[in-house]
Parts: sequence; structure tokens; C-alpha cells
Amino acid sequence: MTAVTGTIRNGVNTDTMFATLDLIKTQPELAKFQFRATNRWIDGAHNRSTIKGFYAAGGEDTTRTEAFELDAGEPAILLGTDTGPNPAEYLLHALAACLTTSIVYVAAARKVPLTSVESTLTGDMDVRGALGVDPEPRNGFESITVSFRVTGDAPEEKLREVVERATRRSAVYDMVTNGVPVAMEVTTE
Amino acid sequence: MTAVTGTIRNGVNTDTMFATLDLIKTQPELAKFQFRATNRWIDGAHNRSTIKGFYAAGGEDTTRTEAFELDAGEPAILLGTDTGPNPAEYLLHALAACLTTSIVYVAAARKVPLTSVESTLTGDMDVRGALGVDPEPRNGFESITVSFRVTGDAPEEKLREVVERATRRSAVYDMVTNGVPVAMEVTTE
Repeated sequence: MTAVTGTIRNGVNTDTMFATLDLIKTQPELAKFQFRATNRWIDGAHNRSTIKGFYAAGGEDTTRTEAFELDAGEPAILLGTDTGPNPAEYLLHALAACLTTSIVYVAAARKVPLTSVESTLTGDMDVRGALGVDPEPRNGFESITVSFRVTGDAPEEKLREVVERATRRSAVYDMVTNGVPVAMEVTTE
Repeated sequence: MTAVTGTIRNGVNTDTMFATLDLIKTQPELAKFQFRATNRWIDGAHNRSTIKGFYAAGGEDTTRTEAFELDAGEPAILLGTDTGPNPAEYLLHALAACLTTSIVYVAAARKVPLTSVESTLTGDMDVRGALGVDPEPRNGFESITVSFRVTGDAPEEKLREVVERATRRSAVYDMVTNGVPVAMEVTTE
């Protein structure tokens, strides 16, 4: 019992965490990962992504026995029938989820027991850009605001340090703030 | 029957579409939208976003009667228990969904009947960045590759034009390729 509670912090097995970090330090080629999604249009603004396989640590990871399916849509005002969150909302979720997991992992590594991590994200958009009505507004969010409330058994300064370091390590925060090169290929047969 | 089939193309009501575009042209203040997500940590890499309300066209949109809930997670190799797609996979889905809807809407506006839109997205990541093992690799994907297969009742050149214009109009493509300013606020009580 003591051994188990000693290695699990914030729901993260820190022994496994440090073993993984050590392994990747000595064998950096294991750090090459590839994630994937396939998407299929259903009707109107309704489309569905399937997410299952990925490449990790030198081989194809086959531990997922079932695929995840995600439905996207648009509300009526954007010509859909609300078959799911819209793509911009999914981006907010991706950012929230990545920052939250980063906070939880960094806190686990630094022996900070958390009690709650909550966030609200808002993204402001002038839809004239995406609708092609006016070339001036950009297509995406002009800005995103992220408000975190983090509580745990540590002084405020320590909790803020955890959030700051987690932000510097978050994969999606990096992508959303700095952008990523995207290559597009199209076939029509 | 003729009237209905005449205004619905690719599942999109094009009469409503053009009316919306005309309205926003004459009243650009209606183009201000705000999308939102709230997220709550559950345990380890498991967290959940709730998505419901948004601001659109001069007021709070209350047409959604139920909230969407999205669970995120990580696979075992990234210290989770696969409670959902991981945040980087959600970002790929957001990009796929936005490009797909943009293709469908642009095709509807240009009188191109589509029969299928499928895509596969891959994102390559060196996890030494996000794990904090090495400062050299970035945290997020080094690059994303998007492969679309689009078929419809139009010449190849026309279908390629639709994809090209849709890419130039996609909100998430803009954000993922160009980045967005993100403001972070933190409270610890």
C-alpha cells in the first residue's frame, strides 16, 4: 500500500514517468512519435474523425483495442445541425486538455499534490474572414483567453510555477501559439 | 420538392448561406463570434471539456439544448489510461473537421455536388520537447501532413480549386499554420 501511494501522484505513476524520461535521454530515437486522424464527410457540416493507431518508441503502438470517434458539426447559425462541437471549439478543447495534462504531469514530477484544475477558454472570431466576406479579419480566432484555477497542497507561488512550466512544455500550446507547417495533398479519384 | 432540392447542396442550405453572407456584408457587427470551452481535470491524463454556449450575431446563442462533453486522455506509453484521444490528436481532428466543412461549404456555394470527402492527417513529434528532456525539439508537431481525397460531379481542376479556396478560408487551418495570441490567467484559490 505504501509503495503504491508513494509512486502514484495526481493519478500519474511517477516511477514510470522518471523511467520513461531516463530511457528517452539515453535512446533519443525512441522519442519519435506520430499521431494520426482520419476523417470522413457525412453530410453538410457533419463529419467524423476516427483515431486509433500511432507510432511511438520505435514501433507501431497497438495497445488501443478500439478506435475513438469524434463528430464535428456547426450550430444552425453557421448552417449546420449541431452534430457535434465545431472545429474551432475542438481546437479550444485540445488546448485546454493539453495544458491541463501538462499541469498535472509537471505537478506530479515536482511532488505537488493537486486537488483541482479547472479552466475556461474563450476564442474571439470575426467570421467575415472565414466566410470570405471581407479580406481584412483573419479566418481564425483573433485571440484566445485561457483562465485556469489550480488548487493543491502547495503555496501559491509553487502552483504558479507549475502552471508556468507546464505552459512552456505543452505540445498544443506550442502549436497554437507558434503555428506548425502543414503540407496538403489532394487526390480527386 | 423542386424548391427544396434546389436550395440544399451537399447538405447545406445555400439560400440560407447566401442570405447570411448578405446580412453580414451589410451589418458587419453581426460577424463578432465567441466560442468557449470549459475543462475539468478528472485524474491523471483524464480531463473533460464541456462545450455549449457561444456568442454569435449580436447575442448569446441559446439554441443548443445540451452540452457536448469531450474526454481527453493519453495512451499507456504517455502515462495515461486511454480515456480519450490525446490533445495533439484532438488538434488533428479540429484541423480535419474544419478543412472538410470548408470544402463542403465552398463546393455548395460554387454549385459543385460532392460525393465524398475523406482525409488522413499525420503529425510528427519528437516527444523530448514536451517531456522536457531536450530543449532542441519543439514541444508540438514538427509538421502535419494532410491528404485529402475529394470526389464529386465536377472536373478535377474544379475540385482542386474548391480545396484550395477552402484551405484559404479555414479557421483552424489559419490558426494551426499561423498561430494565435493566447493570454493565460491563473488563480490558485
